[in-house]
Amino acid sequence: MKRNDMDPLSLPGGAERGSDGAALPEQGGQRVLTPERWLVRKLLDTVGSPPIALTLWDGQPLEPEPADPVARVRVRDRRAFYRLLRHPDLHFGDDYAAGRIQVEGDLVAFLTTVDRYRQARNGYGGGRPGLTARLHRARHNTLEGSQHNVHHHYDLGNDFYALWLDEEMVYTCAYFPHWEASLEEAQRAKMDHVARKLQLSPGDTVVEAGCGWGSLARHFAREYGCHVRAFNLSSEQIAYARERAEQEGLSDRIEYVQDDYRNVTGTYDAFVSVGMLEHVGTDHYRDLGEVIDRTLTDNGRALVHSIGRNRPMGPMNPWIERRIFPGAYPPALSEMTEIFEPMAFSIQDVENLRLHYDRTLQHWLERFGRSEEAVRDRFGDSFLRAWRLYLSGSIAAFRAGTLQLFQLVFTRPTDNDLPLTRDYLYGGGGG
Amino acid sequence: MKRNDMDPLSLPGGAERGSDGAALPEQGGQRVLTPERWLVRKLLDTVGSPPIALTLWDGQPLEPEPADPVARVRVRDRRAFYRLLRHPDLHFGDDYAAGRIQVEGDLVAFLTTVDRYRQARNGYGGGRPGLTARLHRARHNTLEGSQHNVHHHYDLGNDFYALWLDEEMVYTCAYFPHWEASLEEAQRAKMDHVARKLQLSPGDTVVEAGCGWGSLARHFAREYGCHVRAFNLSSEQIAYARERAEQEGLSDRIEYVQDDYRNVTGTYDAFVSVGMLEHVGTDHYRDLGEVIDRTLTDNGRALVHSIGRNRPMGPMNPWIERRIFPGAYPPALSEMTEIFEPMAFSIQDVENLRLHYDRTLQHWLERFGRSEEAVRDRFGDSFLRAWRLYLSGSIAAFRAGTLQLFQLVFTRPTDNDLPLTRDYLYGGGGG
Repeated sequence: MKRNDMDPLSLPGGAERGSDGAALPEQGGQRVLTPERWLVRKLLDTVGSPPIALTLWDGQPLEPEPADPVARVRVRDRRAFYRLLRHPDLHFGDDYAAGRIQVEGDLVAFLTTVDRYRQARNGYGGGRPGLTARLHRARHNTLEGSQHNVHHHYDLGNDFYALWLDEEMVYTCAYFPHWEASLEEAQRAKMDHVARKLQLSPGDTVVEAGCGWGSLARHFAREYGCHVRAFNLSSEQIAYARERAEQEGLSDRIEYVQDDYRNVTGTYDAFVSVGMLEHVGTDHYRDLGEVIDRTLTDNGRALVHSIGRNRPMGPMNPWIERRIFPGAYPPALSEMTEIFEPMAFSIQDVENLRLHYDRTLQHWLERFGRSEEAVRDRFGDSFLRAWRLYLSGSIAAFRAGTLQLFQLVFTRPTDNDLPLTRDYLYGGGGG
Repeated sequence: MKRNDMDPLSLPGGAERGSDGAALPEQGGQRVLTPERWLVRKLLDTVGSPPIALTLWDGQPLEPEPADPVARVRVRDRRAFYRLLRHPDLHFGDDYAAGRIQVEGDLVAFLTTVDRYRQARNGYGGGRPGLTARLHRARHNTLEGSQHNVHHHYDLGNDFYALWLDEEMVYTCAYFPHWEASLEEAQRAKMDHVARKLQLSPGDTVVEAGCGWGSLARHFAREYGCHVRAFNLSSEQIAYARERAEQEGLSDRIEYVQDDYRNVTGTYDAFVSVGMLEHVGTDHYRDLGEVIDRTLTDNGRALVHSIGRNRPMGPMNPWIERRIFPGAYPPALSEMTEIFEPMAFSIQDVENLRLHYDRTLQHWLERFGRSEEAVRDRFGDSFLRAWRLYLSGSIAAFRAGTLQLFQLVFTRPTDNDLPLTRDYLYGGGGG
């Protein structure tokens, strides 16, 4: 799909001059639009007029309907429509969660189509990277702000996440050696992929910034004989991680620390951060680089794994940023360079795992779907719908190419003891 | 090696108050320095006081000498020393080429040591990235300027390069499957590595920007059955490339075009540029991105292979930039993002092959060394010494970690038909 290959629907001349709120009958073979229906068309124009069927609050479809619509959207409430007009990215989510907007059909396919059409219409670079992005970056991720933001999302309760994550509670992109791998298999493969990129050996010391429920630390301690210090701000996650390490008899090799990555001390053979950078904020990337610089040994390896984008833009989606993940921002590579360039680290390897996040989210959404009753019982219908939308919208974004997943490996510039080729990542000889 | 772990030599108090030009005898066990010898020490300080022995124009060594010097430098001429003081990076090269500065011992080891000590002293980020870099970037790489710059370096005569390059005349970093691979083997492996990254299939169309003597185009046409249009500004190289394609019966599948990359037309399954970006100039990276955007098919793959650095800085080395490679500039990744981010290309893969360029240059230097007589006969002693310094200094830079070699692969953001893993690059299954 090339940009600008789809023109907005051209409206029949004079149609905007209709005046009442109901659908008018056809006049001379041309369908005349009411002002509100004209506004709905305009709204669809702004996202490239994707092939979706719309039923408005009066119960009538917006005509003409597309021949092969990907889904039918019901806007049940006139006010919901006017909110959509004002700020579609924010209010689509809110009104979907509240049930005032409904999608009949495949929600993921619908969201993917909208993402693709919108990009084709507006350019893949997205709208205005400038001010919005900059204002956004300044927000929240002070030491106290980060604590608050993390609490909002990660302290919803371990039980909630246990409903739909894998058994190790890994809440980051998996690595699918093949498309049909199970989620459990793919999460283990991810941890092994990361371990190989970090060239871990028994006895190596590792520091982890943002450890979630502690799965990577346990994997490194159990499978690679490493000593891991793992940082996380979420009290619920840390408690869970400590308990599991205790149960597995790994407590002597793992220290889970409930603290900010900026307070990391000591030196380590490896630095790893999987899925934390999204919450760091670009203004603090240099801080992160300085933390890595002061903690990494001379021959140490660092790996940062993060959702990213093709170019700097505003918040990933204002609804997700406000309702699901406060303070989150997926950076472009140019922004990520602020982590390693001021310290003159050498980038060794960057891998884009976007398709793997699509697949990971498919598994999560499927499991989430099987737990809908439990989620509804505990959090209510609106929460259920919000999370279904969040998971589906994330699949759509990775599938449409608006989100990426970057894994970056870097070292000190003077380290010449590096493998010659990447054969060691793929079981080959050489190097 | 960590930055700032070596202090500049502390001078004995009062030593700077010596006054004549000759070495003074020891006084009370302390060696007193003349003003010039004090200045020599200061100059060494600025590069972190590496363990090198120095003999000055009066034939006397600078004392105290280091216990285990990596080499002995003879500055045969007082004026050469004062030029060094003013602009060491430029004049070391000129006076080395002229024979007024001589290095006894291993030139590569000497240059590598100086690079490392200098970085340890001044920080791996290097000095002032700001103004110098910006002024530099503005230079020369207009359509006409590029033509001139390319002529300076690449039109020295094919015979000259044939003396020390491999039989395919590949003048870019090779890919060593193992350290002891021959140069011929490693250059073929590089072309195969690039072909695999581009996922070439028979019948694919490829456009190459900056094709040198045309080896990659011949390899793609011969080994992968591709149709290649290859651009280069150098008339000598294009003539050579056409002749070889003719000899090999590949003319029907390769078109060598003597023109600037900005004039590329048509659409292609793959875009490749190996070793041209160094000559493009950061101000023109966006132009390059636009060329790729308008020439790549929807599922096309793009690969850019370039010398780079850990962070934005000034010219790689002013002597190399002025005397060897006018207009050359090795970018940091943050600068390279100007190629793909404005077009919203998705970065799929970045690989750093710095150690491979060290090895490639070792082969070139060894072959160059075996051809010294031929080079001296044709170009004179000063040219011979300049090129020996250039090749040795390049090894030093890759070995000391001041230069990197980045291979970047990128695609359109909407392309989901990508291999799931990188197994296909390493002969594995999966994907």
